[in-house]
Amino acid sequence: MSEVTAPGVALASGFDEKLAASREASIALATTTTDVKNRALEAIAQAIETGADVVVPANDLDLANGRENGLSVALQDRLRLDAARLASLAAAVREIIALTDPVGESIRGRNLPNGVRIDQVRVPFGVVGAIYEARPNVTVDIAALALKSGNAVVLRGGSAAENTNRVLVSLIQDALASVGVPAAAVQTIDEFGRDGAKRLMHARGAVDVLIPRGSAQLIDTVVTESKVPVIETGAGVVHVFLDESARLDWSTEIVHNAKVQRPSVCNALETLLVHEASAARLLPSVLAELAASGVTIHGDDATRRLFPDAVAATEEDWATEYMSLDLAVRVVGGIDEAMEHIRTYSTHHTESIITNDLGNAERFLNEVDSAVVMVNASTRFTDGGEFGFGAEVGISTQKLHARGPMGLPELTSTKWLVRGSGQSRS
Amino acid sequence: MSEVTAPGVALASGFDEKLAASREASIALATTTTDVKNRALEAIAQAIETGADVVVPANDLDLANGRENGLSVALQDRLRLDAARLASLAAAVREIIALTDPVGESIRGRNLPNGVRIDQVRVPFGVVGAIYEARPNVTVDIAALALKSGNAVVLRGGSAAENTNRVLVSLIQDALASVGVPAAAVQTIDEFGRDGAKRLMHARGAVDVLIPRGSAQLIDTVVTESKVPVIETGAGVVHVFLDESARLDWSTEIVHNAKVQRPSVCNALETLLVHEASAARLLPSVLAELAASGVTIHGDDATRRLFPDAVAATEEDWATEYMSLDLAVRVVGGIDEAMEHIRTYSTHHTESIITNDLGNAERFLNEVDSAVVMVNASTRFTDGGEFGFGAEVGISTQKLHARGPMGLPELTSTKWLVRGSGQSRS
Repeated sequence: MSEVTAPGVALASGFDEKLAASREASIALATTTTDVKNRALEAIAQAIETGADVVVPANDLDLANGRENGLSVALQDRLRLDAARLASLAAAVREIIALTDPVGESIRGRNLPNGVRIDQVRVPFGVVGAIYEARPNVTVDIAALALKSGNAVVLRGGSAAENTNRVLVSLIQDALASVGVPAAAVQTIDEFGRDGAKRLMHARGAVDVLIPRGSAQLIDTVVTESKVPVIETGAGVVHVFLDESARLDWSTEIVHNAKVQRPSVCNALETLLVHEASAARLLPSVLAELAASGVTIHGDDATRRLFPDAVAATEEDWATEYMSLDLAVRVVGGIDEAMEHIRTYSTHHTESIITNDLGNAERFLNEVDSAVVMVNASTRFTDGGEFGFGAEVGISTQKLHARGPMGLPELTSTKWLVRGSGQSRS
Repeated sequence: MSEVTAPGVALASGFDEKLAASREASIALATTTTDVKNRALEAIAQAIETGADVVVPANDLDLANGRENGLSVALQDRLRLDAARLASLAAAVREIIALTDPVGESIRGRNLPNGVRIDQVRVPFGVVGAIYEARPNVTVDIAALALKSGNAVVLRGGSAAENTNRVLVSLIQDALASVGVPAAAVQTIDEFGRDGAKRLMHARGAVDVLIPRGSAQLIDTVVTESKVPVIETGAGVVHVFLDESARLDWSTEIVHNAKVQRPSVCNALETLLVHEASAARLLPSVLAELAASGVTIHGDDATRRLFPDAVAATEEDWATEYMSLDLAVRVVGGIDEAMEHIRTYSTHHTESIITNDLGNAERFLNEVDSAVVMVNASTRFTDGGEFGFGAEVGISTQKLHARGPMGLPELTSTKWLVRGSGQSRS
């Protein structure tokens, strides 16, 4: 695939050299204007949408290797790129052009009594690392988001997409160079394999922040092994609690939407809790609606008495992020038991209460310790696009820096600018 | 010292039990009103200022142990508590009462097109861990700051202050219990020694964020070993660059203030860079003023030609945070070389340029990648008190979550509250 690298773009090849090149690129990017970054994004979009002749053969190679290595049909589908998918990736890049550049945004500022002026402004992190799985769309997505927020990015995708990613990054680098942005602003370290991922996690100082995207297991590995600060995204053991006063229509519709609309994503419902006083009124029709859409119910004893088609839930079910048409269902004594269950099993992503009781609604909002806590709404609303951020950087489940859906501003740090006229501290 | 524990306060004694008690306390604290938290702070202030009869004997024991173990005179002084110091600690706690409670502060909110209301509000982290050295004032300080921001705190102080800290924490717990706040909101794990510090750093999930305070070595250990997200504070290899157009009076005054006023703190000047075209004009009197205050100059060859009293600087000097009356001085070719030096050796805490050149001032502000970047002001202004935050939580030198001086809001996370009326995602 080397023929797609333009002759003018000579890049570092060793691991440490690559990170040093990322740092150099990040210094240039930090002061690159929005206009130039947008021109680079447009060049990337064009390269992607016209790149099928180099991307598809590389992707076919990855797919062939995948079939040989027993990659599941679902993962093969996530790996596949064709002209239509490239067009939609290009469209996603163009959407990022339209977003406000967060760099330079003034957060707060004031004049100190001694005449010194202080201003806190947004600045890029510098070098962002991304560790993810065999989804080549993430390669383009993260590269574009990092570029718009002024960050250089070092990508470590799944080895099953290595050929595809190499070609995509090469196209992106040529596009960057064509508008005068350092090509090293977007680099992959896939060629260093597992050792590269490990070195990336230990590159404190060279890499400013690491963003893992993918399975709970991948995120857990990064979080526990990394010496670089991590923004933890993802895993969602998401709960809905149907309170005593829950409306049947809202319960049925919200639970169905939260579970069925897109079961493979992190904001999909995984465990339904029901107040014992409303279980007989709500569960039969709520669960029948789900079953009609192919959902398997894993219920506790009380649930199975009301809905005999349910299979018996085990302790393991309460802690499982199915990401499939499965739902754990438990009948609880009331809001306290529901919140206790959530405290025990939740991954602190999103929880929703369906209720008409004001006191319970406020207690749930105040006492449940999750990134997003809802009343009478579908958990599927936990999403950067739905929240109006325009871009989907991921959903943070940690408490540091960013929590919940992240937009471009969450890909920045801040800096204090202090302007004096000779002042010293007394 | 067990007699100072009130009979009603029965607390956990095992490590995991203690962390579980912290989590329980944090749940209660998250919804404790500002009034109650302020009453608890007042009770703590009273207990500290009237606690000399129990604190001083414990402190004497630590001091005696310290002398036996060869603790330096300076460290003995930092360890010492007497009635006057307890009174000033109590006054510091009362200052925190006057600060605005950050919990519940609305950061942003809007109505989505479908009628769903979203609000991002500040919430406590939950359980904060603090690892620090033998400075008992930090025990009171961190406990009060954590309490005001609604966090439970687990303290691991230096073993040299173990007896003092045990009594202080006991006084604080009694004060908390006296106003109905869970005593476990403030706990020490000093009794578990080094193993306890290690377990705290590995207590991901049980501890939400870890704040190390102390030497560069301590912070480095915590940052590299911790599995819990860390807010890195502290180490400052701080630079001032005297540009070609720097005023002599400002240069002399600012450099003297930055180096001499309080050399042992992280915002004190460590390396002075001087434009070669202004070195002869500025250095002799700037350095003479410093020498008159007892500063040892570690200069490069060009500096030593202009100021023969300087000792020869080595490579090591450029990377050293002296925290003493020592200063490294280097003559550079201009702003680019100055910024290159800063990129290589800075800990990204604070840097200041003294200049009358607008273009250079703006370049320095935009291109230097530090928490605080200044023009014509003393680096000693990098301080929560000076910035008007009212409290000194520490100065973050990392890029995630908080950067630069931290106030109470930096001790909080955020949460999204979503209020619907039956909406599902389409």
